[in-house]
Amino acid sequence: MKIGILGTGMVGAGLGAKLVQLGHQVKMGSRTAAHEKAVAWAKAAGNNASYGTFADAAAFGELVLNCTLGSASMEALQAAGAKNLAGKVVIDTSNPLDFSKGFPPSLFAGNTDSLGEQLQRAFPEAKLVKTLNTISVSVMVDPAKLGAETDVFLSGNDEAAKAQAAELLKSFGWKSIVDLGDLSTARGTESYLALWVRLYGAFKTPDLNLKIVRAR
Amino acid sequence: MKIGILGTGMVGAGLGAKLVQLGHQVKMGSRTAAHEKAVAWAKAAGNNASYGTFADAAAFGELVLNCTLGSASMEALQAAGAKNLAGKVVIDTSNPLDFSKGFPPSLFAGNTDSLGEQLQRAFPEAKLVKTLNTISVSVMVDPAKLGAETDVFLSGNDEAAKAQAAELLKSFGWKSIVDLGDLSTARGTESYLALWVRLYGAFKTPDLNLKIVRAR
Repeated sequence: MKIGILGTGMVGAGLGAKLVQLGHQVKMGSRTAAHEKAVAWAKAAGNNASYGTFADAAAFGELVLNCTLGSASMEALQAAGAKNLAGKVVIDTSNPLDFSKGFPPSLFAGNTDSLGEQLQRAFPEAKLVKTLNTISVSVMVDPAKLGAETDVFLSGNDEAAKAQAAELLKSFGWKSIVDLGDLSTARGTESYLALWVRLYGAFKTPDLNLKIVRAR
Repeated sequence: MKIGILGTGMVGAGLGAKLVQLGHQVKMGSRTAAHEKAVAWAKAAGNNASYGTFADAAAFGELVLNCTLGSASMEALQAAGAKNLAGKVVIDTSNPLDFSKGFPPSLFAGNTDSLGEQLQRAFPEAKLVKTLNTISVSVMVDPAKLGAETDVFLSGNDEAAKAQAAELLKSFGWKSIVDLGDLSTARGTESYLALWVRLYGAFKTPDLNLKIVRAR
């Protein structure tokens, strides 16, 4: 399918490359029509990869992935344009990380309101699904690299949109996909980043993830 | 050893009973000298179990466990008394849960400051170790019930105190004990509660915990 990626960072580049590998047509959007990183990414990713503005990418995609930094996400979606997002599944991988005081970051949302909910309220016709935000990009696109099955979470208000997001996750190799409920549950996964950054600090690798173990 | 427990709720009762089973002498403290729940607990737990005020329990313990609700923890430690906590390992199992708007709770600390750090600042001579706050009490005292090894976290500023806390955790059956670092890392485990409450909502059981899986 045609997929628009918002953001030229590691997450956008990694997810975009995986999606091209899987046979999708992918347009990477940024603030400018020919962002240096988007041009380089498209050249490396092959014939099904292209680039443009945020609006170009959103208009192109039947499905849109927000891969911008949390601090830039609202502006990026505004640049993408409400009409280009309306009716579409928007997979939101962003986190409300505040690096203004260095590492580890604090969170500018997540407790009584999530960034996911803020974006959904600003773009009510988009079908926003928060997912993949608890995982580094190298694991997002290759969950098997951890050597054991781990969990990825879904939060969203539209059941069909979550089902479509789950299909995409399965195509990446995800098997245990935990639907936490409506988009307010993104407060949980966004807040978890406060632990994730400390796990990264303790283990010195971003290649880690959670397995939820329950009593049977 | 002699252990003081602050709090008469499920966490205090469960940890206290386990500690008595392990051969420790345990005094459960509360706001009053003979709290109904503390009296009933001591009767059920056996000869090595006793009760008293917060100050009685703290004075009694060579080691003290804070098992009060987060919203009541500062007041409980104040009642316990700085001199009764000075020089002692204080294991803090509390979480900054705010139930004022119902379930799921939000957090009144954890992002740019943790409840653990607040308590440590208020009682600088105590050696506070944040641990067990990510786990329901039934799992705290019986990690094997989950059927697979999971992780428990330590945060604290005093290395010897963390080592003592780790020994206690091992006596409960914990094998994978992750030292996240100084007490500021309690922001991570306290913030994780925002995800924990949603996992509880999704899985309908508090008997769950995390296994951190890393690429090898």
